[in-house]
Amino acid sequence: MTIVQQAPLQTPSRTPTHHQASLIVHGRDRTGIVAAVGAVLGKHQANIVSLDQYSDDPLGGAFFQRTVFSLNNLKAALPQIDRDLKTALAKGFDLEYRLRDLSIPQRVAIFASKADHCLLDLLWRHRRGDLPVTIAMVISNHPDTADEVRAFGIPFFHVPSAGPDKSAAEAEHLRLLRGNVDFVVLARYMQILSGDFIARLGVPIINIHHSFLPAFIGAGPHAKAKERGVKLVGATAHYVTEDLDEGPIIEQDVVRVSHADSVVDLQRRGADVERAVLSRAVQWHSEDRVIRHHNHTIVFA
Amino acid sequence: MTIVQQAPLQTPSRTPTHHQASLIVHGRDRTGIVAAVGAVLGKHQANIVSLDQYSDDPLGGAFFQRTVFSLNNLKAALPQIDRDLKTALAKGFDLEYRLRDLSIPQRVAIFASKADHCLLDLLWRHRRGDLPVTIAMVISNHPDTADEVRAFGIPFFHVPSAGPDKSAAEAEHLRLLRGNVDFVVLARYMQILSGDFIARLGVPIINIHHSFLPAFIGAGPHAKAKERGVKLVGATAHYVTEDLDEGPIIEQDVVRVSHADSVVDLQRRGADVERAVLSRAVQWHSEDRVIRHHNHTIVFA
Amino acid sequence: MTIVQQAPLQTPSRTPTHHQASLIVHGRDRTGIVAAVGAVLGKHQANIVSLDQYSDDPLGGAFFQRTVFSLNNLKAALPQIDRDLKTALAKGFDLEYRLRDLSIPQRVAIFASKADHCLLDLLWRHRRGDLPVTIAMVISNHPDTADEVRAFGIPFFHVPSAGPDKSAAEAEHLRLLRGNVDFVVLARYMQILSGDFIARLGVPIINIHHSFLPAFIGAGPHAKAKERGVKLVGATAHYVTEDLDEGPIIEQDVVRVSHADSVVDLQRRGADVERAVLSRAVQWHSEDRVIRHHNHTIVFA
Amino acid sequence: MTIVQQAPLQTPSRTPTHHQASLIVHGRDRTGIVAAVGAVLGKHQANIVSLDQYSDDPLGGAFFQRTVFSLNNLKAALPQIDRDLKTALAKGFDLEYRLRDLSIPQRVAIFASKADHCLLDLLWRHRRGDLPVTIAMVISNHPDTADEVRAFGIPFFHVPSAGPDKSAAEAEHLRLLRGNVDFVVLARYMQILSGDFIARLGVPIINIHHSFLPAFIGAGPHAKAKERGVKLVGATAHYVTEDLDEGPIIEQDVVRVSHADSVVDLQRRGADVERAVLSRAVQWHSEDRVIRHHNHTIVFA
Repeated sequence: MTIVQQAPLQTPSRTPTHHQASLIVHGRDRTGIVAAVGAVLGKHQANIVSLDQYSDDPLGGAFFQRTVFSLNNLKAALPQIDRDLKTALAKGFDLEYRLRDLSIPQRVAIFASKADHCLLDLLWRHRRGDLPVTIAMVISNHPDTADEVRAFGIPFFHVPSAGPDKSAAEAEHLRLLRGNVDFVVLARYMQILSGDFIARLGVPIINIHHSFLPAFIGAGPHAKAKERGVKLVGATAHYVTEDLDEGPIIEQDVVRVSHADSVVDLQRRGADVERAVLSRAVQWHSEDRVIRHHNHTIVFA
Repeated sequence: MTIVQQAPLQTPSRTPTHHQASLIVHGRDRTGIVAAVGAVLGKHQANIVSLDQYSDDPLGGAFFQRTVFSLNNLKAALPQIDRDLKTALAKGFDLEYRLRDLSIPQRVAIFASKADHCLLDLLWRHRRGDLPVTIAMVISNHPDTADEVRAFGIPFFHVPSAGPDKSAAEAEHLRLLRGNVDFVVLARYMQILSGDFIARLGVPIINIHHSFLPAFIGAGPHAKAKERGVKLVGATAHYVTEDLDEGPIIEQDVVRVSHADSVVDLQRRGADVERAVLSRAVQWHSEDRVIRHHNHTIVFA
Repeated sequence: MTIVQQAPLQTPSRTPTHHQASLIVHGRDRTGIVAAVGAVLGKHQANIVSLDQYSDDPLGGAFFQRTVFSLNNLKAALPQIDRDLKTALAKGFDLEYRLRDLSIPQRVAIFASKADHCLLDLLWRHRRGDLPVTIAMVISNHPDTADEVRAFGIPFFHVPSAGPDKSAAEAEHLRLLRGNVDFVVLARYMQILSGDFIARLGVPIINIHHSFLPAFIGAGPHAKAKERGVKLVGATAHYVTEDLDEGPIIEQDVVRVSHADSVVDLQRRGADVERAVLSRAVQWHSEDRVIRHHNHTIVFA
Repeated sequence: MTIVQQAPLQTPSRTPTHHQASLIVHGRDRTGIVAAVGAVLGKHQANIVSLDQYSDDPLGGAFFQRTVFSLNNLKAALPQIDRDLKTALAKGFDLEYRLRDLSIPQRVAIFASKADHCLLDLLWRHRRGDLPVTIAMVISNHPDTADEVRAFGIPFFHVPSAGPDKSAAEAEHLRLLRGNVDFVVLARYMQILSGDFIARLGVPIINIHHSFLPAFIGAGPHAKAKERGVKLVGATAHYVTEDLDEGPIIEQDVVRVSHADSVVDLQRRGADVERAVLSRAVQWHSEDRVIRHHNHTIVFA
């Protein structure tokens, strides 16, 4: 366990996270976890702002806890809280924990291609102070959105994807990203990431994909959905794993469509729900509200 | 084309459909259809209550029109309107039409198994006058809901499904249904209908099935959905074709769930959305608002 | 604080609440509450199933906590847990708590008038085992639903409301209710309760009322909403206080309507959302998920 | 009736409106309207793309019809279609109509203040070709959004609102707007328009306001809503009349909130639904899908 150290916040967040920290505890459920964690926070006179806890089976199942607490001397106290948690949780528990100073925003890189709806929604929310992250950079395989991104004061890097061999592009991505970001968002980035890249990058990656009932695999999903007459189009935000589009789901939503909607209308409605779902997923991830467990997530939203 | 003749209404519908008829016109789009239909209705001094029209391509695509009109002497006038439409639409159009006296409700049989949530919702809506149908009978492979159904004054027939050979049960179904119903609703009926049965029955069949993003095939879909951590559970009402669960979709909806919902909770939330979606689909079908075209539907809701 | 004692469960709940208790702690926030509560539960080897906590201001604001825990010998242990909590929370905290054995369902009386949509939805959910309550009785100012209610095995009492003087009817209500129920649900009960009755009854009362944007006061709200062309109709479930329809909101929802919906259609759509909203509110209340604070609620749904 | 003439389209719309016109017919219902209109369009060999019709009472109530048709030689044919409609509808009907070449987008001015969420959403939808309008200008009483607006290639005018006397500012507004725009959108413009200004401007004005159940009048509505514990926040888009916030509703929607949402969170969620609702209302208005009637609207969405 380490206390994540990050670059200072670009824009002040409206949310009063000053002097606040989040603590995620996750592992095998056992009697006494709550008391043990509570004792450490109590000893340090931490004010608990919120606490959410869930156990998928109180008899030896998996345990998930998210605590947000505040302390006047938070920065000074965190290292000792960390040591005390380590000591307390070492005693017969099978748990991991993650402690984070919420006044230090997580650093994110956004990958995009030509479509700008998800990208812009994130940039707008960030500028407005609604997204507690530092957007370290935007990377795209197309130069189209460069001016727009830079107008927000965010660095833009154009890394073309030349043909089937992605190794050069991925090497460039790794040079830009490693050590600089805490997570990555694929905002309608239309390239597949290799398993090797995902492993070497070593930080969470959030992706958004369209969802339909029934599912339409392959190219032109909106045309297939139109042909099938679906009444809902949706979107799913999930963590990227090697299994494309099969990683743990963070958030989903749908909008209603009708026979009168053309394929272009379905794409447009789909874009609306994609940007909304991705923004919520990024918000929750950046506020440490999402815990991964096997192939699903616990979201304390 | 025939004017559908049906048994008189059991309970008075609150919707003022007295003296009203619906006209569905469906076929290849061509200039002049609207004028031709309008001329026939105008000649008979019909008051047009509502008119919805859609063309998937105005240059030779498919044309769909639903008109509801009222006439004081509707019953007397309908046969002549029918003849006039036949004459008018015979002139160079490639169209079918369906003319129906809305004061005569369609007759429906409901199939159910043990779960009663969809069945009860339909019976209750019917009793309060919200569903303009005559429920001719309920057929179930389990006797469990017999008392309840009969308390609504609706005939209940128990037709057990004995093993893999469904031919005896299906023969019994056909004896009960043929000539007696205009459509069939599968209200969580947990048996598969054979293609032969569907063909011999010859009336539309509406089914409801749970829907998930992603889809979970086979038994125990709620347990699989729980494992995968879906954030939405849904339902799809569709017309039954030989391809199980692949027929034209009439209606879909979802509800939000979270990691804190157990498998039982997912089933319960799923049941809520199933009964809502099925009831809407049955309502729209019974009001002649749904037009099938290839493998999708036009719903003038 | 008392451990609520109630009649045994009529129907087995599907939710595995065997050996489970809920603990609600509510009062002024102060450092150390979590540790103090955790220590008591830890001492008794309680398995914490879920824990939700919220503070509207960690520096001396209001504190709300809901814990569900399980214990093999729950019934035997509860009195001692109660004493230990009393001792622990007496030390300098300004808190109330409520401890309840979840295997003992709360007892509810449902008040109804002629409309049956909310009433039936509650009765159905209860019979299915989805609502962890004992429905002690249904009281109505109209005899219309008597047969239906009794078919569920629930006592039905007809208490007519004769004119403006409600004192005789309210006296009869109190005779039926006092000591027999833990809360009351007004399922579209079209009579106003006097402040005196509410005070003398002394248990929570949940009401459902239609909601519109904008609000339409007085008789015929659906007709006014139609005239005003609203695009949403809704419902609000709330606790009853002396200020009619102004008590703490438990749950709200809306459905979409259009210009094509008649006043009857608005009522029908409104009824659908009313029964859904009321059922959720009753479910959450009966699972001890709702905490009242000033004129609003904390809902750990 | 006049055929509206407007400036050419700035950006190509993705919607295939080439050679398409919309016809709105609105007035007293009478037998024969559909046939009369159909005959005119039929005579000109118009291909009817869609047709929606509604009557609030087929016996002498109000009649509403929207037809979209296509013609190869649309621009040449429109004047004659206009004359033919005038002739046909003059014969004993009490109707108004509005004929518009859909390839000529309506011209709109957007008013904004400091909040940019609604403004940016409109500018962005317009740039990607989803909003079939020409944005003639943005007017604001604050200079804050000038750079951003101009980056979209749209003229920005700063018209400060100096104190309670709005006459100078309104005179400036009229100078900028008259003859230049077909409608105006108030995208969170925090100034009240005088009745005199509205009358002299003479084009439709669309406004967005937050909506709550219950409603909270005056300043700080989100703080009041938080205090009252609402579970939904919403937004209403409506036409502006002299009665502030009381004009015909075009669109409404809500999002779910909880006790855990702070006042800032409510504002943020409210902003999300405001921009979505306003964008839909502007889209429908610009596609001639909205008909005003008394104090409500017919929306053929």
